Amino acid sequence: MLSKNTVKFIKSLHQKKYRIEFGQFFVEGEKSVLEVLQSDFLVDLVLVTEAFENKNFGVLKSFKGELIRVTQNQLEQLGQFQSNDSALAVVRMKPNTPFLPENDELIIALDDVRDPGNLGTIIRVADWYGIQKLVFSPQTAEFYNPKVIQSTMGSFTRVKFFYEELESVLGRWKRPVYGAFLDGTIIHKLQNPAPGILLMGNESKGISPEMEKFVSKKVTIPGFGKAESLNVAIATAILCDNFKRLMGS
Amino acid sequence: MLSKNTVKFIKSLHQKKYRIEFGQFFVEGEKSVLEVLQSDFLVDLVLVTEAFENKNFGVLKSFKGELIRVTQNQLEQLGQFQSNDSALAVVRMKPNTPFLPENDELIIALDDVRDPGNLGTIIRVADWYGIQKLVFSPQTAEFYNPKVIQSTMGSFTRVKFFYEELESVLGRWKRPVYGAFLDGTIIHKLQNPAPGILLMGNESKGISPEMEKFVSKKVTIPGFGKAESLNVAIATAILCDNFKRLMGS
Repeated sequence: MLSKNTVKFIKSLHQKKYRIEFGQFFVEGEKSVLEVLQSDFLVDLVLVTEAFENKNFGVLKSFKGELIRVTQNQLEQLGQFQSNDSALAVVRMKPNTPFLPENDELIIALDDVRDPGNLGTIIRVADWYGIQKLVFSPQTAEFYNPKVIQSTMGSFTRVKFFYEELESVLGRWKRPVYGAFLDGTIIHKLQNPAPGILLMGNESKGISPEMEKFVSKKVTIPGFGKAESLNVAIATAILCDNFKRLMGS
Repeated sequence: MLSKNTVKFIKSLHQKKYRIEFGQFFVEGEKSVLEVLQSDFLVDLVLVTEAFENKNFGVLKSFKGELIRVTQNQLEQLGQFQSNDSALAVVRMKPNTPFLPENDELIIALDDVRDPGNLGTIIRVADWYGIQKLVFSPQTAEFYNPKVIQSTMGSFTRVKFFYEELESVLGRWKRPVYGAFLDGTIIHKLQNPAPGILLMGNESKGISPEMEKFVSKKVTIPGFGKAESLNVAIATAILCDNFKRLMGS
């Protein structure tokens, strides 16, 4: 039975200040809820339709938190999906941990990527290419924003992320820092790149001058038409694809 | 002076049925309005702030349509941008023309891409890679939707597009049709691809079985992690980047 207090609580999680106050966020839709239930996130509460419960009995059986049966209409009132006939989960945020990279990894760092859809898409791209760590400047969009979670399509459960001052991360970094610029080496022609940090900039300003000084190799996506730029998530994907091809992995 | 009728007319263009009835659509923001004014689109009306008018006197001087001075607040009431301190243009739709490809082109075809943001991003990607023609199935999102126009970042002025039944286009097509599938040739390893049509599928269903039979070469973007799929605009961008690299242009 869904109480008024639970309704009020879940609705409050649409706002960042309450997500931070409670240390919780919500996840919607069949695929994402199933993935978070099978991840290392701690799930406190799951609201399910009867159909979802019957279909996913196996996964729900091992769930130790609170389970509430609701209607599709109730789910749609609570979340941000226009249509949700399956489930919504309330999940505990993970504690911040320090960024401790390994030597042979490709890592993505974001210098103030503000749009939640872009952040979510970049997380999904990272997961596709097996990139496990992402470093976000403090001004980057919030990982637990419902739009970020939604656009990762479940990939938020598989990446590690670190909100840190990039100045500090890049300042102590001894390996390559690749940055996307319009006047760098054409990415198709880059020779034997070593693993390192791929730094991507803000949607309108690009990489800030303060961070540009840490870039050891500027790279460029070749354009053949008249568009002035690419969306930051698109550019991240193209660069990751090239790095994976060039690194032979 | 902005009349009530003009306000009502522009607001009506938020809806597809009025765009079709009037054969017009609107374009917002400094960059897009400047690009449409300098394109082969016919612009009927431009609303400008004083600042935009002063800054862009040169471009506006050769504009023959109606020019109305408005405030930032008025612009924000009329369009869909939260913030618009520059301009909004009302533009004539182009008449449909038949799809007449040339032999050495790479062309993008979309099989029911429904999300306006995805369509706009794909148009921007096409323009970046110098791909000039796009064929859309009739169920693909509407080119003149304000969200499509916005996410092209001005690229809508530089591509040619054709809404046609893909069955008819692909049925008479004699050259390669590349389709993105999970079990095709790894795109990094494709050998000397000839120009042809790159067919991309619907966000949730992919390429439909009816269209799959026209695909002469299945291609796959290699994944290294656990994400099940990529967003269609991301996948289009990665494939275009690889085709351009492999075709040596």
